[in-house]
Amino acid sequence: MLNNISQRASEFPDNPIRGLEPLANQARAAGINIIPLNIGAPDTFSPKQSIESAVQFLQNTPALKYGPSAGNLDLIAQLTRFYTKKCGFTGISPENLMVTQGASEALDLVFYAVADQEDTIATPDPTYPNYLTIANKNSLKMYALPTSIQAGFHLSKESLENLPEDLKAIIWSSPNNPTGAVYQEEELQMLLEISRQRKIWLIADEVYRSLVFEQDKPGFYRAPSILDYATKEDLERIIVLDSMSKLLGLCGARIGSITAPSELIKTMVKIASTRGCPSTISQAAITSINEIPDSFFVDNRAVFQQRRDLLYTKLAELADLGVVVPPQPPEGAFYLVVELTGINGADFAKWLLTEYPALAKTKETLFITPMLTNSGGFYLDRSRGKSQIRLAYVISEELLVKAVEILKKAISLYLSTRK
Amino acid sequence: MLNNISQRASEFPDNPIRGLEPLANQARAAGINIIPLNIGAPDTFSPKQSIESAVQFLQNTPALKYGPSAGNLDLIAQLTRFYTKKCGFTGISPENLMVTQGASEALDLVFYAVADQEDTIATPDPTYPNYLTIANKNSLKMYALPTSIQAGFHLSKESLENLPEDLKAIIWSSPNNPTGAVYQEEELQMLLEISRQRKIWLIADEVYRSLVFEQDKPGFYRAPSILDYATKEDLERIIVLDSMSKLLGLCGARIGSITAPSELIKTMVKIASTRGCPSTISQAAITSINEIPDSFFVDNRAVFQQRRDLLYTKLAELADLGVVVPPQPPEGAFYLVVELTGINGADFAKWLLTEYPALAKTKETLFITPMLTNSGGFYLDRSRGKSQIRLAYVISEELLVKAVEILKKAISLYLSTRK
Repeated sequence: MLNNISQRASEFPDNPIRGLEPLANQARAAGINIIPLNIGAPDTFSPKQSIESAVQFLQNTPALKYGPSAGNLDLIAQLTRFYTKKCGFTGISPENLMVTQGASEALDLVFYAVADQEDTIATPDPTYPNYLTIANKNSLKMYALPTSIQAGFHLSKESLENLPEDLKAIIWSSPNNPTGAVYQEEELQMLLEISRQRKIWLIADEVYRSLVFEQDKPGFYRAPSILDYATKEDLERIIVLDSMSKLLGLCGARIGSITAPSELIKTMVKIASTRGCPSTISQAAITSINEIPDSFFVDNRAVFQQRRDLLYTKLAELADLGVVVPPQPPEGAFYLVVELTGINGADFAKWLLTEYPALAKTKETLFITPMLTNSGGFYLDRSRGKSQIRLAYVISEELLVKAVEILKKAISLYLSTRK
Repeated sequence: MLNNISQRASEFPDNPIRGLEPLANQARAAGINIIPLNIGAPDTFSPKQSIESAVQFLQNTPALKYGPSAGNLDLIAQLTRFYTKKCGFTGISPENLMVTQGASEALDLVFYAVADQEDTIATPDPTYPNYLTIANKNSLKMYALPTSIQAGFHLSKESLENLPEDLKAIIWSSPNNPTGAVYQEEELQMLLEISRQRKIWLIADEVYRSLVFEQDKPGFYRAPSILDYATKEDLERIIVLDSMSKLLGLCGARIGSITAPSELIKTMVKIASTRGCPSTISQAAITSINEIPDSFFVDNRAVFQQRRDLLYTKLAELADLGVVVPPQPPEGAFYLVVELTGINGADFAKWLLTEYPALAKTKETLFITPMLTNSGGFYLDRSRGKSQIRLAYVISEELLVKAVEILKKAISLYLSTRK
């Protein structure tokens, strides 16, 4: 049968975050308790305003017809207000916005619309795996802007020199998935300067913007945005991706948005019209976004900051075992990348779900994300990241403490079995 | 700015169904009442079981996390039961199924997975526009199997001779969108025979299967399926697409499914893992599918059959104006394709939304779907279908009567202004 499956589908890269799910399910079926550090699905409660607006929509809509391809008009109006009033962005009108089926559809539309087959898009490396897989699906080439754990995965000026001739865009996430780095003014200005010189698109994935730490300001707060430093002319080359999954802890709703020049939005809406519309029920959940009190964002930020501090501190104590953490705790999102010296991350992640429980005589193990897998991962430069893993601190502090204990035990055991 | 938009995006074909929406909105804003015959969004009520199961899910789920990429396990179990018990299909297990973001995502995944760039897929012509646009997006070539209004748009043996060498699959919808034709055993057997000889995939889009008329059987009834005539070996080359949009009148939920050999499902789930999961709220609406009483399907069928009979009869009376209908009323779905002799469908559809109200001194007009537009449409062979339009009878009988009256008046007026 596999003969009849296309080559491109057969060769589609592993998903480093979800690829080991079958092994995790097997372990669960065998009675093993799995502590999930692999996927960025927060355990925090969804806002009750979102649940209520979705319930009201369902109860007041006798026939669930299609919505507009660009998204429901009332949702677009609310998002415009949210970005303008709450986030403080200027120059965003409804015609600069469209609603998507999560940030992943946004990415697919944007890649298709800004570059033709064999064109190149640059991204900091490591990067978010979907950038690589969706670029590949759209027949694009990717170019790596190397960042390192030692530099806290921040952008360097050197990485931005000698960019390829056929470059159409640079894409990054800040706060960063997987590294948690939050790009500061200097980095964003460097990117703007390149966009001006080369007339290329900047694609800013800001889905974690409300999760930025070490900020004393009260109320809703967000990470620096590319929009903060853009001139009116720059805006003609800037695309911002957003997702309600992370902002509101509504991962399952699959609602994202794109902010871009109106001509590009119009073109992408035409392409997106092939899928009708994003789920109108999910959209209804987001329509109440401006009713969510600041305390929701403040509380979430506090929860994740505490978890980050705890996890970072505990892991830093494992230096003797070869665990390398960045020089500072990451500034945002809810991920931490660590290096496990002498350990193959992909092999170790698999081993934790399969061999570890029996070897350690335990009924509990970890589900972690390797930074590089057989055919996929977070690195474009596949000579890097083999010993790194990504941990998502989306579980309670109690569980995080337990997770680090298991990790400590597992590293020793793994290394001893490999000697 | 348009300079910076990719060529493939700039050249993306018009959407014949949604492309005129901006003109319709302008007319509405000017106080014109628009009778919508353009889009297949039924006005019939969504089943209350679906609304209730979605509401319950929302009220009982404190944190809306991601679901599995293949779809929620409980939904897959319910769909397996629905297809097996209600539809009477054999040989479908949960590993043959995945849940998608509507049938459009299903199509995108299937095309990517069964054919590589520049491979060919055949389809009856006219066909569903998404087949053409999504094939194009996946860099596939399409091959037309001509059908005609005179033959009720049924498949002919001749059209299936001399198929191209690099053919990887045949895709069709039955009941057909746009023609309403329901393929009978003879046609399905012809397709199976080709699949056996050529070892190619058959992709059966059966989203309208519950809307098939002229059947005296009581209770739930469905159109003939490719699965009815497939041997166990045939099943290794058969893919069935489904959508809850049409079956349950839940268009806005955007939930579809793919039934296929387990190896292909596994491959497509890996590709689909880039988008996380379909909306878990929307999925919850479908999980109650087996609780929906037969009367829901029976009543819907009766409503659309009456509308079809009315619309077909009324249009057949306009023969003097050059309106050509198929020799028999279409057997299923809720579309009717008619030929307007001497009229350019795309121009007429636009004119109805722009010039007609003022010319006819009326505040009411029609939104119809041309079968061929500037760069898109339902025809692969662009020398055909210029004078044809598709009418979706998803409005009340009263409105249908009014629509035909407007059409009659508009045709006369249009022809007189063109003389």
